[in-house]
Amino acid sequence: MTGGVEERDQSVSLDLLKQKMANFAKERDWDQFHSPRNLLLALVGEVGELSEIFQWKGEVPKGLPDWKEEEKVHLGEELSDVLLYLVRLSDICGIDLGKAALRKVELNAIKYPASKKNFKTSNGTAHTG
Amino acid sequence: MTGGVEERDQSVSLDLLKQKMANFAKERDWDQFHSPRNLLLALVGEVGELSEIFQWKGEVPKGLPDWKEEEKVHLGEELSDVLLYLVRLSDICGIDLGKAALRKVELNAIKYPASKKNFKTSNGTAHTG
Amino acid sequence: MTGGVEERDQSVSLDLLKQKMANFAKERDWDQFHSPRNLLLALVGEVGELSEIFQWKGEVPKGLPDWKEEEKVHLGEELSDVLLYLVRLSDICGIDLGKAALRKVELNAIKYPASKKNFKTSNGTAHTG
Amino acid sequence: MTGGVEERDQSVSLDLLKQKMANFAKERDWDQFHSPRNLLLALVGEVGELSEIFQWKGEVPKGLPDWKEEEKVHLGEELSDVLLYLVRLSDICGIDLGKAALRKVELNAIKYPASKKNFKTSNGTAHTG
Repeated sequence: MTGGVEERDQSVSLDLLKQKMANFAKERDWDQFHSPRNLLLALVGEVGELSEIFQWKGEVPKGLPDWKEEEKVHLGEELSDVLLYLVRLSDICGIDLGKAALRKVELNAIKYPASKKNFKTSNGTAHTG
Repeated sequence: MTGGVEERDQSVSLDLLKQKMANFAKERDWDQFHSPRNLLLALVGEVGELSEIFQWKGEVPKGLPDWKEEEKVHLGEELSDVLLYLVRLSDICGIDLGKAALRKVELNAIKYPASKKNFKTSNGTAHTG
Repeated sequence: MTGGVEERDQSVSLDLLKQKMANFAKERDWDQFHSPRNLLLALVGEVGELSEIFQWKGEVPKGLPDWKEEEKVHLGEELSDVLLYLVRLSDICGIDLGKAALRKVELNAIKYPASKKNFKTSNGTAHTG
Repeated sequence: MTGGVEERDQSVSLDLLKQKMANFAKERDWDQFHSPRNLLLALVGEVGELSEIFQWKGEVPKGLPDWKEEEKVHLGEELSDVLLYLVRLSDICGIDLGKAALRKVELNAIKYPASKKNFKTSNGTAHTG
């Protein structure tokens, strides 16, 4: 049996993940644990696990050319854990994460106009959100 | 003028955000800064800003009933900053974040079967990823 | 056999920990791994482990009255891991952490005068460093 | 006028910082805000600010040879903020941080014997706490 229509699409949506996380919690009676600050601390925990993957490696080139396949799989899992808690935290807080993210990209475009790229990047610290 | 087809959809996809972040960096000549560990530290920085929003509030109820609208907007921005760096980090590492997230949800379902919910939640610590 | 003079003192100094960490790394030939950003990411990893201890607990009262002894011991270990990497990171960066901390307390005292305590705490967000 | 006896010592102790933080909070009526999870999130916020200093720099050599004096001062402040919240969090949780840290160093020495240094460091990931 195949998944629903949305899962056959090439691209995974934030709403799909939100729904999956909500179902997952409901089926396990975990809503009681999913308060905003509990989820936030769980997110911080996962960011810690993500950092541990990179901690002793020194600078890592794009695309991770020297990493074993199992390391990449592990990395994908930790990136996912951060994402899933982020999606769940947003949901529990009543924030539409996808909509907020599109808006933030637009705000960033205003804050850092593409035409001023040389100035902005001259010190390497100016382009944060 | 309206956005492209994908932006008129109800649900924002991870691929859309990935593409927007890639374009954003390219237009500003920021690819040079977007190494895996640079992006990871930027992500940690944004998680810090997210935490600051919650830090002096004590326990916060779901839905943030007592928060001002401007606080919720700010929260949406910080959640988005975390998401955008996470999407960008995944892209730079060559990880398909959406695919990895769907797989992680499935792994979690095996690790924490719904039928064992009572046992699993009895100590409140067993259900982490 | 007892430890050195400094270890018999009641209070542990940052310099003692710095020296212990330096010896520890030297004896294991780990200086090669202890670059600033490696140590920073290791610190983030430990902060994640610290957060995991608190993540599903909801609000926790001061003194942790309901925690088991083994939980407190575990907490002490994670707090220590954060401290030890912080001390090591400071040392590797050439920062005198104790001196910097005393200075920061003084700066905070100027930034948040004790006489204005009522105003400062009225919104619960003004007193961050 | 000079500081107290303890401050004239060369080395700053964790107990001194604990006492200063306790006094600081008491004088400002901030004890009400200093719950364990509030302080933990404040700590995460400061770790974020610390990470921001390093985020766009690529690999940074030991001793920070190319950093401006003002950058080093800023770094010292952020390292201190992390330390001060860590000291305060430990105090509020009833953990003797200095004692715990000395014990953790001893545990680490058992976990990673100096005589096995080559084996332990061969993969660069084995020596975490």
